[in-house]
Amino acid sequence: MTTDLPLKALAITCSLKPSPAPSSSDLLTQQLLDAMAGHGVQTELVRAVDHDIRPGVEADMGDGDAWPALREKLLAADILVLATPTWLGQHSSVAQRVLERLDAELSDTNDDGQPRTYGKVAAAVVVGNEDGAHHISAVLFQALNDVGFTIPAGGVTYWNGEAMQGTDYNDLEKTPESTASTTATLAANTAHLARLLRDAAYPPA
Amino acid sequence: MTTDLPLKALAITCSLKPSPAPSSSDLLTQQLLDAMAGHGVQTELVRAVDHDIRPGVEADMGDGDAWPALREKLLAADILVLATPTWLGQHSSVAQRVLERLDAELSDTNDDGQPRTYGKVAAAVVVGNEDGAHHISAVLFQALNDVGFTIPAGGVTYWNGEAMQGTDYNDLEKTPESTASTTATLAANTAHLARLLRDAAYPPA
Amino acid sequence: MTTDLPLKALAITCSLKPSPAPSSSDLLTQQLLDAMAGHGVQTELVRAVDHDIRPGVEADMGDGDAWPALREKLLAADILVLATPTWLGQHSSVAQRVLERLDAELSDTNDDGQPRTYGKVAAAVVVGNEDGAHHISAVLFQALNDVGFTIPAGGVTYWNGEAMQGTDYNDLEKTPESTASTTATLAANTAHLARLLRDAAYPPA
Amino acid sequence: MTTDLPLKALAITCSLKPSPAPSSSDLLTQQLLDAMAGHGVQTELVRAVDHDIRPGVEADMGDGDAWPALREKLLAADILVLATPTWLGQHSSVAQRVLERLDAELSDTNDDGQPRTYGKVAAAVVVGNEDGAHHISAVLFQALNDVGFTIPAGGVTYWNGEAMQGTDYNDLEKTPESTASTTATLAANTAHLARLLRDAAYPPA
Repeated sequence: MTTDLPLKALAITCSLKPSPAPSSSDLLTQQLLDAMAGHGVQTELVRAVDHDIRPGVEADMGDGDAWPALREKLLAADILVLATPTWLGQHSSVAQRVLERLDAELSDTNDDGQPRTYGKVAAAVVVGNEDGAHHISAVLFQALNDVGFTIPAGGVTYWNGEAMQGTDYNDLEKTPESTASTTATLAANTAHLARLLRDAAYPPA
Repeated sequence: MTTDLPLKALAITCSLKPSPAPSSSDLLTQQLLDAMAGHGVQTELVRAVDHDIRPGVEADMGDGDAWPALREKLLAADILVLATPTWLGQHSSVAQRVLERLDAELSDTNDDGQPRTYGKVAAAVVVGNEDGAHHISAVLFQALNDVGFTIPAGGVTYWNGEAMQGTDYNDLEKTPESTASTTATLAANTAHLARLLRDAAYPPA
Repeated sequence: MTTDLPLKALAITCSLKPSPAPSSSDLLTQQLLDAMAGHGVQTELVRAVDHDIRPGVEADMGDGDAWPALREKLLAADILVLATPTWLGQHSSVAQRVLERLDAELSDTNDDGQPRTYGKVAAAVVVGNEDGAHHISAVLFQALNDVGFTIPAGGVTYWNGEAMQGTDYNDLEKTPESTASTTATLAANTAHLARLLRDAAYPPA
Repeated sequence: MTTDLPLKALAITCSLKPSPAPSSSDLLTQQLLDAMAGHGVQTELVRAVDHDIRPGVEADMGDGDAWPALREKLLAADILVLATPTWLGQHSSVAQRVLERLDAELSDTNDDGQPRTYGKVAAAVVVGNEDGAHHISAVLFQALNDVGFTIPAGGVTYWNGEAMQGTDYNDLEKTPESTASTTATLAANTAHLARLLRDAAYPPA
């Protein structure tokens, strides 16, 4: 049995700001990854905007495209965490670009007609000054599910401030207890579900 | 010229609770209507759940349907305000029912092929414990625009609390300044645009 | 071990039209349930609008409310299928009402702090003359996930016609092959995931 | 009076493919611009992905950023047309980037506290193999409205094919009549509303 092998999680964070600028998306994502580590998950965080991910919907857009290297990490992982800030109430252009590149997975199928994302679990992380998390998690769930991922119960952790205010998640003096608790549950549920699906793959169509 | 005639605004609020239960949607809507009154607008507020609006997409679903009477008020108004609470991040079932009934307007056109909603202006009001206003205003703008309404600049006023908290808008000790200011601008813009369109209708197709 | 016990699926369909009017939502849902039966799932279909589900967000709104009886069926099932037509690009008011009633599950938790929906799997069915399925499945995934359900890979089956056309799914002479194949995969994935989660519950928080 | 001066429209199209690759977004947008020309509007089309628009939310991100030049065109126009393809049911990453850059307009206000986008009208164009137009127009309306634009009645023209099919708008042998008619109405309504607002600005807050 393979249950005791560690799981791997890849987090792709989608701030508009390159490293080393501080990022609320990265902060909440790292908290999630730390919690996952407590459930036997090996984790890695990549900030997408640091990489030259080309526009397009192929697995490799050629010519210096940074996606193929990220895609290798993704295909080796059991869990994808996609994290985004909120701009005009929407997921960031960087997050949408990652989703567009994932669209190619639909046509790279195994002998059973399943994409290589099948059996992987996706979790969402959303932060913003003010509202957006429910809508954005809806978009992420749908898009990630569309390309083959499974969504665990309580599949998102998030923080938004009160309407029309300007504080960021990484400006907060302490992590709000409700967000911390949601993060902990998401880590546990994601690891549990990923382990189940690694050991018992979806049947061929 | 007709510019000096008062404009009429009908507000339909979509709380799940019948009157006389207090409603955050009603509170913020009344604040908007009060501000519109300062711009020469005659206003009326109807709480939809107090009326037996039948499921369906015809102008009259028969058999005690309360929509035809509300529709008469709507067709006599220059401005529609649609107000909704946030449930699971979405507009309420009561608000969706109102939108479904408005779908019938697309097939009740004048000699120029325009629905009777053409030239009317729509404004949105969204309240909720936590996030939802951007998404819900998007849905309301699209649905109301789809059936013929024009959306003024700054077409929504709203309030949401911080993520995962439980205070309602009508629990607040005072109106947040940012929401109050947004409400005032929405009232002014709506009245201005409704007056322009009353005096200069969209051209026939 | 319990793996061989049959799974139970409850489908709630959200047409605006009461029975016995034909419903595209019911047709595609029944096709999904038939496919599930081939995976050892016992199924039941309920058309929500035939029942007097009261507005509100409590598990029982009293006074003839039909939700408590439906809720009993739901809590006894391993799988929830939520099916909706598309009106103005959105899920129906009837579907939103069902979601609102599910909101109560968040506060009815077991000793581990988990809602009774935990471990259940949700699948979506969306039909419409023209576009809407991706957005609506996003909304359903988010709302159902928010109240405790897990979403299987390929968690929706759907059909929409070309832009601005008027044919319904149940007007089609034959089921489009792509929809039929999506339905078959959804049935298999939902049954597989529900069986895994029945046998290995999410860990306590 | 200024009514007879021509209006100016800037269209920003958001295909993922740089010129000279054919683009469905460009095709439908050009049809809209041609129709606007018949209403006395001077038009220009820019394909965003041909320009190095940097990630960020400032008016000028420095260092070769192409947005400031596009922004000058935008501020000189009375009408903005934003056109996007559909990927995973969402507006493209290129379209989201344009919206993010427009976010800066909220803080560049005139003496009356109004952004320079006030009084400008926005129209949406959405194309895709399959569904997405209602949702995407909702997102575009909300985001563009949020940064100051007014949305005319019938504020979007669009085309999507049947569910799960692969033909593009620019593969069609002829323009579907319903889309052509929607485009014509959008052109007329946009020009009419832009003229009204140019001659009668929104009042100061």
